[in-house]
Amino acid sequence: MRTIEWKGDHVVLVDQTLLPDEIHWVEVRDVDTMIDAIRRLAVRGAPAIGVAGAFGVAIAAQRAEHERLGTEHVRAEAGRLRVARPTAVNLATAVDEVLVRADAGAAAVVADAVALAERYALADRQLAQRGADLLEELGAVPARVHTHCNTGALATVDWGTALGIVRELHARSEIVSVTADETRPLLQGSRLTAFELDRLGIDHRVVVDGAGPSVIARGLADAVIVGADRIAANGDVANKIGTYPLALAAARAGIPFVVAAPESTLDPATPTGADIAIEERDEDEVLVFGGRRVAPSGSRAFNPAFDVTPADLVTAIVTERRVIRPARGDRL
Amino acid sequence: MRTIEWKGDHVVLVDQTLLPDEIHWVEVRDVDTMIDAIRRLAVRGAPAIGVAGAFGVAIAAQRAEHERLGTEHVRAEAGRLRVARPTAVNLATAVDEVLVRADAGAAAVVADAVALAERYALADRQLAQRGADLLEELGAVPARVHTHCNTGALATVDWGTALGIVRELHARSEIVSVTADETRPLLQGSRLTAFELDRLGIDHRVVVDGAGPSVIARGLADAVIVGADRIAANGDVANKIGTYPLALAAARAGIPFVVAAPESTLDPATPTGADIAIEERDEDEVLVFGGRRVAPSGSRAFNPAFDVTPADLVTAIVTERRVIRPARGDRL
Repeated sequence: MRTIEWKGDHVVLVDQTLLPDEIHWVEVRDVDTMIDAIRRLAVRGAPAIGVAGAFGVAIAAQRAEHERLGTEHVRAEAGRLRVARPTAVNLATAVDEVLVRADAGAAAVVADAVALAERYALADRQLAQRGADLLEELGAVPARVHTHCNTGALATVDWGTALGIVRELHARSEIVSVTADETRPLLQGSRLTAFELDRLGIDHRVVVDGAGPSVIARGLADAVIVGADRIAANGDVANKIGTYPLALAAARAGIPFVVAAPESTLDPATPTGADIAIEERDEDEVLVFGGRRVAPSGSRAFNPAFDVTPADLVTAIVTERRVIRPARGDRL
Repeated sequence: MRTIEWKGDHVVLVDQTLLPDEIHWVEVRDVDTMIDAIRRLAVRGAPAIGVAGAFGVAIAAQRAEHERLGTEHVRAEAGRLRVARPTAVNLATAVDEVLVRADAGAAAVVADAVALAERYALADRQLAQRGADLLEELGAVPARVHTHCNTGALATVDWGTALGIVRELHARSEIVSVTADETRPLLQGSRLTAFELDRLGIDHRVVVDGAGPSVIARGLADAVIVGADRIAANGDVANKIGTYPLALAAARAGIPFVVAAPESTLDPATPTGADIAIEERDEDEVLVFGGRRVAPSGSRAFNPAFDVTPADLVTAIVTERRVIRPARGDRL
């Protein structure tokens, strides 16, 4: 299934906040609805929000043409889409990419947005092949893989990045099992990754985020594979909060720490991880649990959505085109 | 307030599973109730379950005397209490300590159990002084402290270990703020530590467990202070799952990683962390969230309750009597 798709004059996307309890498709017919879907994480994952941004521009272009609002309207809407979330570079670059065609009319923008989605989907397949080849090369197969957050079909368009490599290894009969961090605060691991692994028939265990590093230390994982939201020129990787401790543990245990990310997630214009804006989200994501406040009313939370893993801890970045080895000093 | 107390012929303890919503006191009048309270974490924290075990033996001794069941009954009950939870050494050692007086009659056992609780309480106060002195010595004050799980009054008898040091620093006007991991799966950080910090009027923020290491990497903490459930002869520290990643991050950031633990938590009979039995708890603690199952029904969890931090990452262990420096090669 495609988790986000262009339907002639609108977009449908699966509401990831309701999974796995409910598979609910959202129809998106205006930019406000798309921005809302991005902000509340109904659509999430760096590649998927890139596609969502591109489709948002397509919707704006169609409306501008229909209501004769001019290219300025499209540019303004693109500007709003571009900043709906700050950390994943795909959102800004995908918006910018389709926006350059604004002067050519709505049909051209739509065609470009659909082509971008297809290119993203194809990139995942190639990335998965390359990643599985790398794991073989590193002697990590048959593999017990540890992963974080959700990087499967839901986070992308139809195949996945880190979880795409797992799928490819599974197809090659080279996956033993997966341990998946639950990924607080929004539980993308237990809700989404477990859901995808369950559907794929891959043996898996969910662990609390604090357990990941000791799963690695105890010798229960052969490799860590994660996605990324933005990768700086020096190889520093911004990814979902809780990624960095896995990199520390993998380095100490001497197992590969592999980042699976399409070329579109690389950001050579950002020199280092210190230059990446880290989104801070609502405190209630941490303090309210299952609809009930957990901490005392006087307590506050600090809720950064991402962390930065320094390049020296990154064994490899796998894209659809190449393998980069930041720990050996490779730059983008 | 004392969180667990001997009341002439029975024990009262605050049910920590209901905090901070409800302050409910449990009356414990038989060993089964005490074992249940320990297993379901109504009473938790290495020192507190040590006291619970000693009081459990006192209850058994009184019953044995009253019903003329003999010392063998007390020994059998002590054997059951001793293994209610496997990782914290205090439970076994406290049970054993008061059991040696079984032949002297119930009054002697009770007196010993009460004396043990008093000794534990006094140890905390001394430990807190020594720990605050150490933080001063290390140049970490005024301190922004990062901590994990709950190590305050609730985890001990009336003052706390790691959080006891924070309280002492606060009394010395040397605490700036505390970041506290929420501590999944049972949220002792957001439920209990935030509750205690709130009552003490100490500025604090709750973070998800995955965020702790990047809080440290971003320079937002001057020291990590945690408790322990068992410390091996070589200085390896077993503590609540999620402690190890903080030690990795502290070492990389060059800030002190301090373990606050009374002498009763040291276990020179266990050579290394690899020899410590790690309790695995119910999968539902991970998979069921606020009464609702989060992961698909086909998914399973792996739920180790503790991890082991290797000695070389431990800047200091502070007890009521001394400071041990495992990272410098000190052994117990």
